[in-house]
Amino acid sequence: MSVRALWFERGRLFLLDQRRLPSRVVVQGYTQVEHVAEAIRSMVVRGAPSIGVAAAYGMALASRQAGWTSARAARLLGSTRPTANDLFVGIDAVRSAWDHGRDPLEAASEYRDIVVGECHRIGEAGAPLFRTRERVLTHCNAGALATVEWGTALAPLRVAHDRGSPIFVWVDETRPLLQGSRLTAWELEQEGIPHAVIADNAAGHFMRRGEVDAVIVGADRIARNGDFANKVGTYEKAVLARENGIPFYVAAPFSTFDPASADGTAIPVEERSEEELRRMGGSELMPRKSRARNPAFDVTPSRFVTSFITPTGLASPRGLGQVFRARVRATEARSAARGSARARTGRRSTRRSD
Amino acid sequence: MSVRALWFERGRLFLLDQRRLPSRVVVQGYTQVEHVAEAIRSMVVRGAPSIGVAAAYGMALASRQAGWTSARAARLLGSTRPTANDLFVGIDAVRSAWDHGRDPLEAASEYRDIVVGECHRIGEAGAPLFRTRERVLTHCNAGALATVEWGTALAPLRVAHDRGSPIFVWVDETRPLLQGSRLTAWELEQEGIPHAVIADNAAGHFMRRGEVDAVIVGADRIARNGDFANKVGTYEKAVLARENGIPFYVAAPFSTFDPASADGTAIPVEERSEEELRRMGGSELMPRKSRARNPAFDVTPSRFVTSFITPTGLASPRGLGQVFRARVRATEARSAARGSARARTGRRSTRRSD
Repeated sequence: MSVRALWFERGRLFLLDQRRLPSRVVVQGYTQVEHVAEAIRSMVVRGAPSIGVAAAYGMALASRQAGWTSARAARLLGSTRPTANDLFVGIDAVRSAWDHGRDPLEAASEYRDIVVGECHRIGEAGAPLFRTRERVLTHCNAGALATVEWGTALAPLRVAHDRGSPIFVWVDETRPLLQGSRLTAWELEQEGIPHAVIADNAAGHFMRRGEVDAVIVGADRIARNGDFANKVGTYEKAVLARENGIPFYVAAPFSTFDPASADGTAIPVEERSEEELRRMGGSELMPRKSRARNPAFDVTPSRFVTSFITPTGLASPRGLGQVFRARVRATEARSAARGSARARTGRRSTRRSD
Repeated sequence: MSVRALWFERGRLFLLDQRRLPSRVVVQGYTQVEHVAEAIRSMVVRGAPSIGVAAAYGMALASRQAGWTSARAARLLGSTRPTANDLFVGIDAVRSAWDHGRDPLEAASEYRDIVVGECHRIGEAGAPLFRTRERVLTHCNAGALATVEWGTALAPLRVAHDRGSPIFVWVDETRPLLQGSRLTAWELEQEGIPHAVIADNAAGHFMRRGEVDAVIVGADRIARNGDFANKVGTYEKAVLARENGIPFYVAAPFSTFDPASADGTAIPVEERSEEELRRMGGSELMPRKSRARNPAFDVTPSRFVTSFITPTGLASPRGLGQVFRARVRATEARSAARGSARARTGRRSTRRSD
C-alpha cells in the first residue's frame, strides 16, 4: 500500500492530516476553498508539491462554489504560505483553465498527474546515484506526503531500494514540527527501508565520523542561479556536507523552479508562530516570558549543491538554465496539446472571471 | 536571587532537578552516594562542572556511609557518564583527600569553591569580548545550572550585561533534551537578559543573515590540542560560524581540560537512550518500529575555535599548552598550601582506603 497525501473523489478533496501522524491516521474531506486554504496554512497538508496540488484542487472547488471568482480564490490560496513556489504554480494552472473556460477540476487533476509523473522521473533519474552512496541523510520530509506520491528526495531512494541497493536513511527529526521523525520515518517504515531518526544536532557528528555517504533534500523554491529555499536547517546540512566532502543533492519537480527569482535574496522566507517552539503535546518547552523566533525555511546558496535531480535528469547549478528552458518547453507543449484538443472538440471558453 | 544548581547543607546534597525546569522548580536532598550517582546518570544534575561538583559531594557522602571505600565510590560515580572530564576531576579531588585522611566533605567544598571561583574569572576574562559583539548565539546550557554558579559560556555575557552592554542571546533550543529552551532561557529570563529561543536548525539562517555577532559555548572535555567535546550540535555551530566569519568561543574551567587526551579521537562520546528522541511529555514523536541514534556529544576540531576563555584569560588553540601548565601549577599550589596547613595543625592521615 503506497502512501498518498491527498486525492480527489466524488466532489471532495481528501487530505491526510499530516499534523497527526505517526500516532493517528486521520483523513478529512474538503468541499470548500476556505477550508482548503486553512488546511494549507495550518499544515494539515505540507510539502511544496503537495500544497501546490492541494491549492489546485482548492481552485477547482472554488469554481463550483457560489460567489467565487478565480482571482478571489487565487488571492486566498496564495496568501496561505509565501515560500513554496509550487503553491503559485498550482493555483495558476487551474486559474488559467478557469479563465479560459476549461474545466478547473480537470485542470487540477492534470496538474496533479504532472507532479506525480515528474516525481516518478526524479526517482528514476536519481536512483543510480545511490548505488554506491548507501547511507543517505535527509532533512524534513520530501517523500510521498510532501509530493502526493513518490516524493522528491525520497523518490530516488525508493527506486534504489526497490532495485536492491542496501539503502540506509539518516532521518533528521526536523524541529520544530518534526516532519522527519513523524513523516519521513513513517514513510520509510511503511516501505521497509532501514533508517534511524537523529536530532538535527547530530547530523554533523555522523558526517564527521564518515557515516554519511550523501545528503538529499527537496526544495520549496529554486531561483534561476540555483540558490534554493527549503525547510530551515537545510543550509546547515549543506555547509556541513561540503565541509566533510559529502555530495549534496536537491530533488525537485519543475513547479519548484521559479524563473521570477534571480537568486536567493528574492525568495520570501516565512516566519511562523512562536507556539511551534513553545509547546509540544501538553508540555511547555520554554519559560512563558521568553520569546522565540521561528523561520520555517532558510536559503542555501547554489555553490553548496552537487547536483539538482530534476524530471529531465541531473543538473549542476551552472546547468540550471537548461532546466528552466525545459520547464518552459513542457508548459508550452501542454498548452499546445490542449489547444489542438480544444480545436478537435470545438470546445470554447464559456466562463471567464476577472 | 541568583541561580544555583546544587548546594550542601546539614549533611545533605541538594540538587535542583533540571529535568523539571522551567515548568517546575523541584529541589531534592541526597544523603547516599548511590542516589547521587543515579541523579547524575538521569541528568537531574547536568553540565560538566556541575556534575563534577555533584560527584565530589557524592564521594563525601560515601565516606560517611557504611561499607564504602573511596575506590568503590569512585568506580560507581565514574561509571555514570563518560564524556565530561570534570566528573573525574571532582571524584579524584575528594578521593585523594579521603585516601590521605583529610576530610572528604571539606575537600568537596573546596573543589566547589575552586569551580565557582574559576567560572567567575571566566566571566571577567570574557566580558570585554562582548562589548562590541552583542548578538551572541549559545548552544545547550553552560550557565549557572551547568556550573553551580555563574556559568562558563554565560558568565562573560552576565558580566557584560551587568556592565551595560546591550547583550542579546540567541538560544539554540538544543534537542533532544532542550537544555537551551528549558534551562538557558530560564536563567536569562531570571536575570533580565534579552534573548530568543530558536530551533537548532535556525542558527545557520540567522548567521547567514548577519544577525549573529559571536558564538559561545561551554565544553565537556578539552584535549591537549584544543579539540573539544560538547553537547551534540556544537560542531555544527562551529562549522557554520567559520563559514560566516563569526568568532567562536569556548569557555571552560581547568577541570574540563584533560591532559590525558592528546586530541579529540581520545574523547569518549556518550550515546544515550532512543527514548530521548522518541517521546516528549505524553507525545510519541516517531513511529514505534523506527529506530533512533542519540549521541549526547560531538567533538569539534580546535581549528574552529577563535579563543578559549579560561580562568587565566583568553587562549588560542595553539596557546593551550600554557593553560594546561597553569592548570598543573594551580593544583600543585593547592597541594602545597594544604601541606603547610597540615604541618601547622599537626593533622595526620588517619583514614585510608584502597
